[in-house]
Amino acid sequence: MKVGELGEDQIVATLIEGLASSQQVLVGPGDDCAVIEAPEGLILLKTDAVVEGIHFLSEENPKRVGWKAVARVLSDFAAMGGVPKELLVTLAISKSSSVAWVKELYEGMAGCLKKHGGVIVGGETTSIPDGSPAMISIAGKGQVQREHLVTRSGGVVGDGIYVTGHLGGSLAGHHLDFNPRIEQAAWLVENVKPSAMMDLSDGLAKDLPRLAKMSGCGFQLQLDALPCREGCSLENALGDGEDYELLFTSESHSELIKGWQRVFPGVRLTKIGELVLEEGQSIPGGWDHFRAEDSSLE
Amino acid sequence: MKVGELGEDQIVATLIEGLASSQQVLVGPGDDCAVIEAPEGLILLKTDAVVEGIHFLSEENPKRVGWKAVARVLSDFAAMGGVPKELLVTLAISKSSSVAWVKELYEGMAGCLKKHGGVIVGGETTSIPDGSPAMISIAGKGQVQREHLVTRSGGVVGDGIYVTGHLGGSLAGHHLDFNPRIEQAAWLVENVKPSAMMDLSDGLAKDLPRLAKMSGCGFQLQLDALPCREGCSLENALGDGEDYELLFTSESHSELIKGWQRVFPGVRLTKIGELVLEEGQSIPGGWDHFRAEDSSLE
Repeated sequence: MKVGELGEDQIVATLIEGLASSQQVLVGPGDDCAVIEAPEGLILLKTDAVVEGIHFLSEENPKRVGWKAVARVLSDFAAMGGVPKELLVTLAISKSSSVAWVKELYEGMAGCLKKHGGVIVGGETTSIPDGSPAMISIAGKGQVQREHLVTRSGGVVGDGIYVTGHLGGSLAGHHLDFNPRIEQAAWLVENVKPSAMMDLSDGLAKDLPRLAKMSGCGFQLQLDALPCREGCSLENALGDGEDYELLFTSESHSELIKGWQRVFPGVRLTKIGELVLEEGQSIPGGWDHFRAEDSSLE
Repeated sequence: MKVGELGEDQIVATLIEGLASSQQVLVGPGDDCAVIEAPEGLILLKTDAVVEGIHFLSEENPKRVGWKAVARVLSDFAAMGGVPKELLVTLAISKSSSVAWVKELYEGMAGCLKKHGGVIVGGETTSIPDGSPAMISIAGKGQVQREHLVTRSGGVVGDGIYVTGHLGGSLAGHHLDFNPRIEQAAWLVENVKPSAMMDLSDGLAKDLPRLAKMSGCGFQLQLDALPCREGCSLENALGDGEDYELLFTSESHSELIKGWQRVFPGVRLTKIGELVLEEGQSIPGGWDHFRAEDSSLE
């Protein structure tokens, strides 16, 4: 069987089977980050790659590509309630790549880290055959206070489902220059204590069922409440992907959105549904790395 | 300018310039691993990738490929005197890859970790265009006791230069099934306290000058002492690369090799030279990821 026939979630599930674990691993594969016990708190580990022709176009400004590569990992730290610490950069490029391109790529990475935290402490540059797509893989260590950790699996029936920002149409530019929601996540874990949280990378249609499933719940989605980006349809908001917004669940209370608006007047927060008892709902749309038939950017 | 004209060490030096650092970063880019301060000791961070057609052939047994991908990272932990803890796996493969191949790859990785320590806690599987070479990138966290840390930069004029095992001819099979020298490194940091250490991945001709330079020394190499693998020439031992043996420096004393032989009778330890005052020697040969003109495996 080909991996394209199996689909991403099933491949991951297959690979996780039979992996050894350790007492220090609090959260293993399947969440936004792995979580490791340490005396001073919890360590977050995450790796994420962008590939030329899939996550960015060859002619794209390398600064924007570098920003995106790093911001995706930071978005995952935010999704656990944490902050970035040290990062490693793996660069797979051909010998004919220009040095100027690589330097600008690093400038983009450094720019994102300067704004949102974290430092590059090493990495590797490896050559690939000419004509192969360039790949930038970022591995990062983050940290989160024990009482602030939020996973995908803590949602409870009756919790409200919330999403930050706007959804859809990321390909117009947002997928390259978004700000990972580090600051917003820090406020949420301090003030709201979400029961479950993740970042939206594959589209709400794909990601919400994942969160609900890991929380052992179903969901009821209020389609007319979705915060569609200007010019975007519901279909865009559900399926385009690469929103890099926070999706979280929490006991609903009227003060939540009011409190948020006082601190983040420029970022929308929207209640889009509720966790319910019956599991197994699905939403048409969303991105699968291996099943997608089109060649649009992810 | 193309990266192929600049060469690997120079590219890394260029990229390191201008990176921010942090107080918690004890060792940044340029050593086998980055070293991060933590209350319970020191954290090692490392990332390393293998690419189809460069580090392994397409028709290679995927179990051996998985073993190699993981063993390379473990070898870097050993080089700092440390042990592996948690690893992340980034797999970039096309949709037409077979699920069986991926499963066997993971079996190989798990086999190496079972023998030498460490667990896989997550990662990512991303699709690349059909026909692009597969890439397996392993990011890992290790740890080392503060008093056991060895870097590349601690060598002192007059120290003996030592190497474990045999050198050269790795392509015949060693590069796929080697055992990272975790156990040997643990014995060395406990009993010998090397002044500097690294693992040999690009060949002695490339790697020894790196260690000497970071220690602010030159070196005198006894070519006739090199432990060439059976059937290998001096040129092979210097330049083939992928030996994954430990290269370290230490005050010379007669008990060192005797003590080693009692504990590791099956693994050779050889004194191959001395650190000297005058810097800047070079040795012909060795592997450069971007300058190599041939297409042999690295």
